[in-house]
Amino acid sequence: MAKLTKLDDIVSLCKRRGFIFQSSEIYGGLASCYDYGPLGVELKNNVKKAWWKNVVQMRDDVVGLDCSILMHPMVWKASGHADKFADLIAECKKCNTRTRVDHLKEKDADRAAEHTEHVDIEAAQAQAGDLSAKVCPNCGAVGQFTEPMPFKLMFETQMGANIDDSMTMHLRPETAQGIFANFRNVLDTTRVKIPFGIAQIGKSFRNEVTTKAFIFRTREFEQAELEFFCEPGTDDEWFEHWKQARFNWYLDHGIKKENLRFREHESDELAHYAKGCVDVEYKFPFGSGDWQELEGVANRTDFDLRQHQRGMRTLNKWYEGDGDITKIQLADEAEEYLKGPLSYFDDQQKKRYIPYVIEPSAGIDRSALAFLVDAYDEEEVRGETRNLLRFHPALAPVKVAVFPLVKKDGMPEIAANICKDFKRYFNCFYDEKGAIGRRYRRQDEAGTPFCITIDGQTLEDKTVTLRDRDSMDQTRIPTDQLLTQIRQKLDM
Amino acid sequence: MAKLTKLDDIVSLCKRRGFIFQSSEIYGGLASCYDYGPLGVELKNNVKKAWWKNVVQMRDDVVGLDCSILMHPMVWKASGHADKFADLIAECKKCNTRTRVDHLKEKDADRAAEHTEHVDIEAAQAQAGDLSAKVCPNCGAVGQFTEPMPFKLMFETQMGANIDDSMTMHLRPETAQGIFANFRNVLDTTRVKIPFGIAQIGKSFRNEVTTKAFIFRTREFEQAELEFFCEPGTDDEWFEHWKQARFNWYLDHGIKKENLRFREHESDELAHYAKGCVDVEYKFPFGSGDWQELEGVANRTDFDLRQHQRGMRTLNKWYEGDGDITKIQLADEAEEYLKGPLSYFDDQQKKRYIPYVIEPSAGIDRSALAFLVDAYDEEEVRGETRNLLRFHPALAPVKVAVFPLVKKDGMPEIAANICKDFKRYFNCFYDEKGAIGRRYRRQDEAGTPFCITIDGQTLEDKTVTLRDRDSMDQTRIPTDQLLTQIRQKLDM
Repeated sequence: MAKLTKLDDIVSLCKRRGFIFQSSEIYGGLASCYDYGPLGVELKNNVKKAWWKNVVQMRDDVVGLDCSILMHPMVWKASGHADKFADLIAECKKCNTRTRVDHLKEKDADRAAEHTEHVDIEAAQAQAGDLSAKVCPNCGAVGQFTEPMPFKLMFETQMGANIDDSMTMHLRPETAQGIFANFRNVLDTTRVKIPFGIAQIGKSFRNEVTTKAFIFRTREFEQAELEFFCEPGTDDEWFEHWKQARFNWYLDHGIKKENLRFREHESDELAHYAKGCVDVEYKFPFGSGDWQELEGVANRTDFDLRQHQRGMRTLNKWYEGDGDITKIQLADEAEEYLKGPLSYFDDQQKKRYIPYVIEPSAGIDRSALAFLVDAYDEEEVRGETRNLLRFHPALAPVKVAVFPLVKKDGMPEIAANICKDFKRYFNCFYDEKGAIGRRYRRQDEAGTPFCITIDGQTLEDKTVTLRDRDSMDQTRIPTDQLLTQIRQKLDM
Repeated sequence: MAKLTKLDDIVSLCKRRGFIFQSSEIYGGLASCYDYGPLGVELKNNVKKAWWKNVVQMRDDVVGLDCSILMHPMVWKASGHADKFADLIAECKKCNTRTRVDHLKEKDADRAAEHTEHVDIEAAQAQAGDLSAKVCPNCGAVGQFTEPMPFKLMFETQMGANIDDSMTMHLRPETAQGIFANFRNVLDTTRVKIPFGIAQIGKSFRNEVTTKAFIFRTREFEQAELEFFCEPGTDDEWFEHWKQARFNWYLDHGIKKENLRFREHESDELAHYAKGCVDVEYKFPFGSGDWQELEGVANRTDFDLRQHQRGMRTLNKWYEGDGDITKIQLADEAEEYLKGPLSYFDDQQKKRYIPYVIEPSAGIDRSALAFLVDAYDEEEVRGETRNLLRFHPALAPVKVAVFPLVKKDGMPEIAANICKDFKRYFNCFYDEKGAIGRRYRRQDEAGTPFCITIDGQTLEDKTVTLRDRDSMDQTRIPTDQLLTQIRQKLDM
């Protein structure tokens, strides 16, 4: 049974074993940004590989993409982010702390309703409601707030050296829009036919007002997003398909069933254009059971492609805004957009339409943490506590460790050669230091599925000991069958 | 022989086959930012994997890391970027175009000397020299320039919602500093001993004044950097080791020897702290032979770790600068830093020192393009031109394509099953459309090393045709040996 009952235990585990460090720790740390250490980067890369393998490589109907983080400002005008991607905040007059209005609670209230929908910058203040009974979470003052104001969540920057070509740019707050912007390019350069999807993994940035402890809500984070394009009318079916497929992906990679659940969004939580949305949540083991979203699966209808067709029609107004795109009016919806470049012509049905989109959107950082926390285990072995990480082989940072039992009789050379041979195919770790039991324990703590020991018998009959992390069973395997057997066990 | 003689040919090839698109093309394109299409993302990911395999996985002395793009501002104070990472620019009074002073040529001069060293923001103007004979590259006016001024190359942004915790931040202009900032963390959480390296792949951002055509100099780019820490005195040897190792990596992955060279930096090109620097250059086939840097290998001495020890001592001044770190004075160098947290204690020699650093720093985007251009080939086959990409198997976006000769007699089912089986291990493409010759050609154009065809004989004796991309040789292989043989050929 896992003994991680506090968030601090997880943070400390991640730090101690080189999984996750706070960014810029030597300078006191940078809130809400994190670095992946030697084991962490391998875990995170394996999570990305496992997602890509499942969503792109193994399928015939999904292709990949990798877009830049900086995109043309009109992308964010059309997507709605430039005008609406803001939180409504109020500042406490006593302590000057700014809080999201939807996070404010009344005295003794259980919890505030946290909405994922963002406010319209123009109409923000009207949405605030009455704050006179709300409590400042920092100093406890009641109803002492300034007028609520919108706080923009996109990081802003300037690009270009010349006055003429200098532009206010934003770091992308999601990877999805890069996919919509390339929908036509993908249609034109591949032979995909609807239904098909475009997948992308990459960094996104949101200047969150409240950052949650550790990597649950960070300002810089990595997303794995799929936009799956389908014919209107088939969208419910594909929504169901992806909902199940994504849930199963977590189970198939080792998350325990009792720690995973769906949470359907209430109709008042849904974005106005969304037809349905469900979160895949993981139950982190601290506190009284803290369910956190790992991934959202949404039916976004044809909203995004329609919006970009409006955006493309608005491009001629680009120079009118003086660089402030919130001042530009987006072109109206028009029936003719059905024939625009972001529409799709089905040559079998001889029919043109704007595809609907199902979007599974996963957080790589949160998923990596969930896999780590779920794999964590402590057990009693002959009166001693054994700590281990029961990672799925595909996710384990190191796949195999190789030990010479003693540092003599040519054992180190045999072990080193096996290690060198294995390294062509997967991460392998050579260790000759300390008692063999301690070496096993070190690998248990790193989550290494298999250990191989070269001992006296190896010199006699060319067999080695293969030790399984989870069962601690040891079997003897002929050296010349080692690589094949290990690759079979690892399925790689 | 390759027939890519103009840059436009390469741009068009990349677009047409779905390798590289201009970012935000539907909005007229965003200068200097690029997106990788379905084939491009696989190529780029394979380049990253091949680098990681060679630099991290296959070695015992290198570990990985993945740091955030946003880092504490003091990182850039200590590294020198906050004060010095600027280009000196002058604006033409006639056309208002801003140009880097070191890019300005005199009339009829062959070429301007382009320096990699950047100017000191404080002392910039003194470094400008005489511009009275220099020509504006845009309008041709001679000597019509404003006073030169420093132009900061780091993208700036604001982080945090509260007045108290809001900070001016920069997007990292290189990944290297994240490694130095985590040097202590890696020492504390792993069992590495000097000599050892820390490797990282990730995005960096530079607001370049002049962006070069296509992906040769972009404002958003991906780096693969290694900082290899060694004992002073052994640095020349390690510099030589990494210089050769990195050069060979390009050759081993298919770059032709005649297109690759070293370019040693002249002593006046070297950064003041660097002991040596060499570029690995690739000869792009357009124009009169355009040698471009793919990677730099530098001996950075102990400069960076020393600077961060100064930075750590300066942290207490952080609040004095009012958010403008250029106003803070960095703590002086001191002998006691030799004992600081970024020093290293060698327990065999019982000696403490600040390690020297050898830094191979590769550009992933440029390398991917070099691999693509070098792989491009055109040849005459039976009176027709065959276009192909002779990718190294490890870099090829698709490893194998599987075709049923005709769409009947169960051939599609057999082919689809083989494809499904292969997809567990690598990218495999199923194609049943068009004449078999055209299907081969399509895979040649994508650089797929192997094609497998299921035909009438397969139904009789369970063998298939394996066709080699480069030689076009066809051999018959029993179905049950297919996966093993292909994995051997692919070395994966």
